Amino acid sequence: MGRWPEFVQIKEVGPRDGLQNEKNRVATADKISWINMLSDSGVPEIEYSSFVHPKWVPQLSDAHEVGKKIKRNPNVRYSALVPNRKGLELALEAGIDGASVFMSASETHNKKNINKSIGETYPILGEVIKDAKRAGKLVTGYVSTVFDCPYEGRIRPDDVIRVCDQLMEDGVDDLSLGDTIGTAVPSQVEALLEELLKRYPKDKLIMHFHDTRGMAIANIMTSMEYGISRFDSSIGGLGGCPYAPGASGNVATNDVLYLLNGLGIKTGIEEKKIQEAALFIQNKLGKSLPSKSLAYAVAQG
Amino acid sequence: MGRWPEFVQIKEVGPRDGLQNEKNRVATADKISWINMLSDSGVPEIEYSSFVHPKWVPQLSDAHEVGKKIKRNPNVRYSALVPNRKGLELALEAGIDGASVFMSASETHNKKNINKSIGETYPILGEVIKDAKRAGKLVTGYVSTVFDCPYEGRIRPDDVIRVCDQLMEDGVDDLSLGDTIGTAVPSQVEALLEELLKRYPKDKLIMHFHDTRGMAIANIMTSMEYGISRFDSSIGGLGGCPYAPGASGNVATNDVLYLLNGLGIKTGIEEKKIQEAALFIQNKLGKSLPSKSLAYAVAQG
Repeated sequence: MGRWPEFVQIKEVGPRDGLQNEKNRVATADKISWINMLSDSGVPEIEYSSFVHPKWVPQLSDAHEVGKKIKRNPNVRYSALVPNRKGLELALEAGIDGASVFMSASETHNKKNINKSIGETYPILGEVIKDAKRAGKLVTGYVSTVFDCPYEGRIRPDDVIRVCDQLMEDGVDDLSLGDTIGTAVPSQVEALLEELLKRYPKDKLIMHFHDTRGMAIANIMTSMEYGISRFDSSIGGLGGCPYAPGASGNVATNDVLYLLNGLGIKTGIEEKKIQEAALFIQNKLGKSLPSKSLAYAVAQG
Repeated sequence: MGRWPEFVQIKEVGPRDGLQNEKNRVATADKISWINMLSDSGVPEIEYSSFVHPKWVPQLSDAHEVGKKIKRNPNVRYSALVPNRKGLELALEAGIDGASVFMSASETHNKKNINKSIGETYPILGEVIKDAKRAGKLVTGYVSTVFDCPYEGRIRPDDVIRVCDQLMEDGVDDLSLGDTIGTAVPSQVEALLEELLKRYPKDKLIMHFHDTRGMAIANIMTSMEYGISRFDSSIGGLGGCPYAPGASGNVATNDVLYLLNGLGIKTGIEEKKIQEAALFIQNKLGKSLPSKSLAYAVAQG
């Protein structure tokens, strides 16, 4: 047991990464009630929305209103995804403790996702990072497709390191490494972490697993064996895979909590409240979420 | 990578443990076609049915006919579940290479499941084991609820060892250790394997995980770190949890293969054929099976 962290810090990304991959829209008022439930669960950080242009993510076009109206719990860090200076301005107006910038380790994925080459993306994110830091906000750098890319296949750790190095140089506080299409197995996690941990302290690294092939919990175990203690997850496994509609997306907060509680690792989160919040949004979306421990709880009644 | 086995032996239990937990019946002819597909996939062992009285498992009341009519691949070991001498006789008539006997590490679960105390169960299984060995068959001893019991809660490794010792003394060739309700997390797997591996060689131990809370793949990873290289799994995650209808059951062969292939561990199984067989039975049952990698493949089209 000594080799696992004593405390794991979970960032709830359901309101952002989850909802942006759901076809069905959730009413703004419901989102606000739901985020308030999450705020009350003990989770230390919530990514509450995205300030990407609504044309790209219509599900989150109410980011500003949501940011204005949610009840802020002083023990929760509220963050949002911001693509550029304009997005950051809106986010600052709506209220954020942290800004998340994003790009891909894969040239092709970056191009398809944000319509720019990796080289063209750096200065844009660099500006956002500078402005956000000047405004006193924490900045997380999301790096997508750190294991595999839907267009390029296997991504080499060197390509990931190049992007991470630049983001760190530009001033991000931490890095969230995304298994965007949920293909990784533990040996890939090991290979990447071996390299990254030579360069960055482990508390700068957040692992962001998708559970598209059911590997996420095993990948979290492996990450914890490397001392990683920060993970992104989505309540109920909300969200999906944009490359395979119908497949599952982010690892479920519920399943991560089941694992961590079972291992005796503290999170500060009340499992029951997470379950209630998962049932709430499952109801609003009118579909069963993919979390197996949630499905079990529902089946149990 | 050195610490994981080079080869993993999978026993496909979908036709038995999977189907016995599905409400919908599958026609005998379909079962036979499906088992023939499985026989052709490279899987080294198939538990093709159960010779428990049809009153208890009506879904498998055609065990005898199935055993008679499936096409035997000489590279596959065909086994069946047998509860007693009568069941063994029928199984031998239908044709088996191996017999699986079963009992629980939990007194209450054993009583509820087979209507006898643990002490009363030993002599019955002892007879079956003796007869099966005399007939030249391999015998596997299933031990259920080795981690947690739906009635008694946490089960101590000592209680598991007591049952394992007796079954080994009675002559089983190997032991399959069941996380019957799919509650275990890796620390529980470690605690049990630490004790069992002091007593039995690792190739005598088979781990039988259910994925009811989504922990099975992580538990398999942990087992492999202890040198375990034999696992039971069910195609597509077929089957369910008798204690929570609607929840998932056996770990999916598809997900296990995704993991093992990703880690570079050999199984001799063709993933594509397993996928085809999973889609076949999914169709016959008219419901989506819980395997995430299967759902991904289906979504991909």
